[in-house]
Amino acid sequence: QIDHFGFDENLTFQQRYLIADQHWKKDNGPILFYTGNEGDITWFCNNTGFMWDVAEELNAMLVFAEHRYYGESLPFGNESFSDSKHLNYLTSEQALADFAVLIEYLKTTIAGARYSPVIAIGGSYGGMLAAWLRMKYPHVVVGALAASAPIWQFGDLVPCGTYFSIVTNDFKQSGTDCSESIRNSWNAINRLSSTEAGLQWLSSAFHLCNPLKNLQDAAAMKNWLSESWVNLAMVNYPYKADFLQPLPAWPIQEVCKFLKDPSLSDKLLLQNVFQAVNLYYNYSGQASCLDISETATKNLGQLGWYYQACTEMVMPMCTDGVNDMFEPQKWDFDAFSEECYRLWGVRPRPSWILSMYGGKNISSHSNIIFSNGGLDPWSAGGVTQNITNSLVAILIPDGAHHLDLRSRNPEDPRSVQQARALEICYMKQWIEKGGHSH
Amino acid sequence: QIDHFGFDENLTFQQRYLIADQHWKKDNGPILFYTGNEGDITWFCNNTGFMWDVAEELNAMLVFAEHRYYGESLPFGNESFSDSKHLNYLTSEQALADFAVLIEYLKTTIAGARYSPVIAIGGSYGGMLAAWLRMKYPHVVVGALAASAPIWQFGDLVPCGTYFSIVTNDFKQSGTDCSESIRNSWNAINRLSSTEAGLQWLSSAFHLCNPLKNLQDAAAMKNWLSESWVNLAMVNYPYKADFLQPLPAWPIQEVCKFLKDPSLSDKLLLQNVFQAVNLYYNYSGQASCLDISETATKNLGQLGWYYQACTEMVMPMCTDGVNDMFEPQKWDFDAFSEECYRLWGVRPRPSWILSMYGGKNISSHSNIIFSNGGLDPWSAGGVTQNITNSLVAILIPDGAHHLDLRSRNPEDPRSVQQARALEICYMKQWIEKGGHSH
Repeated sequence: QIDHFGFDENLTFQQRYLIADQHWKKDNGPILFYTGNEGDITWFCNNTGFMWDVAEELNAMLVFAEHRYYGESLPFGNESFSDSKHLNYLTSEQALADFAVLIEYLKTTIAGARYSPVIAIGGSYGGMLAAWLRMKYPHVVVGALAASAPIWQFGDLVPCGTYFSIVTNDFKQSGTDCSESIRNSWNAINRLSSTEAGLQWLSSAFHLCNPLKNLQDAAAMKNWLSESWVNLAMVNYPYKADFLQPLPAWPIQEVCKFLKDPSLSDKLLLQNVFQAVNLYYNYSGQASCLDISETATKNLGQLGWYYQACTEMVMPMCTDGVNDMFEPQKWDFDAFSEECYRLWGVRPRPSWILSMYGGKNISSHSNIIFSNGGLDPWSAGGVTQNITNSLVAILIPDGAHHLDLRSRNPEDPRSVQQARALEICYMKQWIEKGGHSH
Repeated sequence: QIDHFGFDENLTFQQRYLIADQHWKKDNGPILFYTGNEGDITWFCNNTGFMWDVAEELNAMLVFAEHRYYGESLPFGNESFSDSKHLNYLTSEQALADFAVLIEYLKTTIAGARYSPVIAIGGSYGGMLAAWLRMKYPHVVVGALAASAPIWQFGDLVPCGTYFSIVTNDFKQSGTDCSESIRNSWNAINRLSSTEAGLQWLSSAFHLCNPLKNLQDAAAMKNWLSESWVNLAMVNYPYKADFLQPLPAWPIQEVCKFLKDPSLSDKLLLQNVFQAVNLYYNYSGQASCLDISETATKNLGQLGWYYQACTEMVMPMCTDGVNDMFEPQKWDFDAFSEECYRLWGVRPRPSWILSMYGGKNISSHSNIIFSNGGLDPWSAGGVTQNITNSLVAILIPDGAHHLDLRSRNPEDPRSVQQARALEICYMKQWIEKGGHSH
């Protein structure tokens, strides 16, 4: 159903989902259900090795459900993003309803699944969806593993600056003077971009595909650099991996090897910054130039996510340049709202998510694990303390963004091994209880 | 917000609500919040004396919130019912979101209400909304009293015939051969309506405002009679009252005084049926004729309710003429769907309410009282057994439709007095606990 919440639009669309049942115990064995987030579901499927690792132990079926408006699950095909009318059904509530209806469909159509306990699993926005699915549809899932889910990065539930201060800490701890070098880079760029020659130098020094032409381009370049540091913090994994980009183990340490001297002259400092950012974008060595319009994998649906950020997923962020290594920037809701209106013709409703999902008042719910990595900037908006004995927080001090959802790896720190063991333990309890209720 | 679940329609509307705070303890005293149903909120306010009766004892503020599309809370004014586009926002989900947002608004704008525990109270469809508000927004209300709420009158959760068999039992128990007389009346009408003279006789015998012209009119008359018997069962209160119509105490007993001999000839039997139905429509003696297009008070928004029944509130009903006193009629979803499409241009989605609100799998929720009257046909779809120790059922054997929500009355049976005492006891526990969580 394209619109679960209204009856005027009665069209349906095809939702993609992936199933793996080789380890499933046919007689009502459990189902691990990945609540897809803002991207192609095959990519999430390939980056959620944890589910594959535990399938046999839990005799579980795996289901990966694609989120509407991402990957191939486009309600109106190529028209899906054409205007606010077609985008109107891109909300978390519609996505949750899709998941609930899909789970019921699977349970009634797959022989032996009728009483299968279902556990929602997701990371990041998908983690929020997993938690919210349990909160709103507890009759559909017996519990949820919400990995790196910043369900409190809304309204004034958490300070807007913590996110960037965590990024900064990651760099501070990964090399002497590393964060200081980045902090100094902004003014160096500002000074150079004030002249034509400086802009040319920057374009060439950073091997940019499209040369910078003006201050606006320079600002875009700074945003691109910021996002690169943020993304590095998210994927600061203890082993060679390829999530947002192909990267070596502990990539921030590698990056910081180029950023040891913050007191260098502008050009020398920025040449080092180029080396650093080049490691992120060009670890494979195949890129002939760097494109500042791209920061992450194309598997993520940035267009759709921007629309969601412009409607209900309004996450206030800010920097002060003191507790973080970024240029100071206040959270400016009005400017953000104007930009959203210009781009999409919609206005964000920043308090709606709080009304809908309860903000910090969620103690009456049950069976949700909130896991967070200490290195992950998104832990700023996550649940990092137990709320009740069935709304539990698991902290992984050496973990980046949902490390626990990734495949087991010989280089995994103890903390993530223990986190996964605990997650499995809780899931077994839910399955045990869910199985008994019939 | 006219549309809580989409951002393309960004208009707002005025929602009416009534407040009484004369007994409210200003320092975070509780709020009893009536979740308005399909009618004018002042009418519900005047027929929910229970809230007024307990306000002082609980130091509670009373709020009665009108349901969108009823009374004066029309999202598009006079255009609200003009077509399926304007009706698109008439759903239980939108209504619940209205209530959640309104409660948050009241708590932040009324001095001293910031931490007030809120209890949802409602009857009938309003009772469903009270229960669902607690299920979906437990951060907004600490508990719910769902009086005569048929949350299971959907899909195949309960047999479709129980509703009418309860109506029948009410008549059977209220007078010898009473239900048998009504059962025999249908064929008497059928025989008479097969001739022109018979139709004329019926029109005159029943003092109809608009004479019957054909078999279709006769069918409409039978529907009108059926609804009258059903409504009598709903308002079979132990004292003189005026809910759907002004009526004496135990009105079915009064009605049955006319229906003691089912073996009479067609005309004599139907003259008695007229006396019976005339008591329902004309107890005041002021009606000069009976209008078969009207069965209940104008305070109910029948148009809006019919749209809701044609979209998500699909309640299967059936009769067999054996376990009930009505003409046999199977539940015919396809015919119903066609009729909905013809009237509103929409198709009902009979399984959506089950997916959304969980059907019988609601045990993970808490703090909901489901009260039901043994005389009330709607108890057929109600929760009449405890589900957990905080999802409790209260049965009122001598109660009709949400008798417990009405004002205390000297004629109240013991069962409703005890039900109310227990309801107050639970509410005090919720308030106590809700107050402590700060």
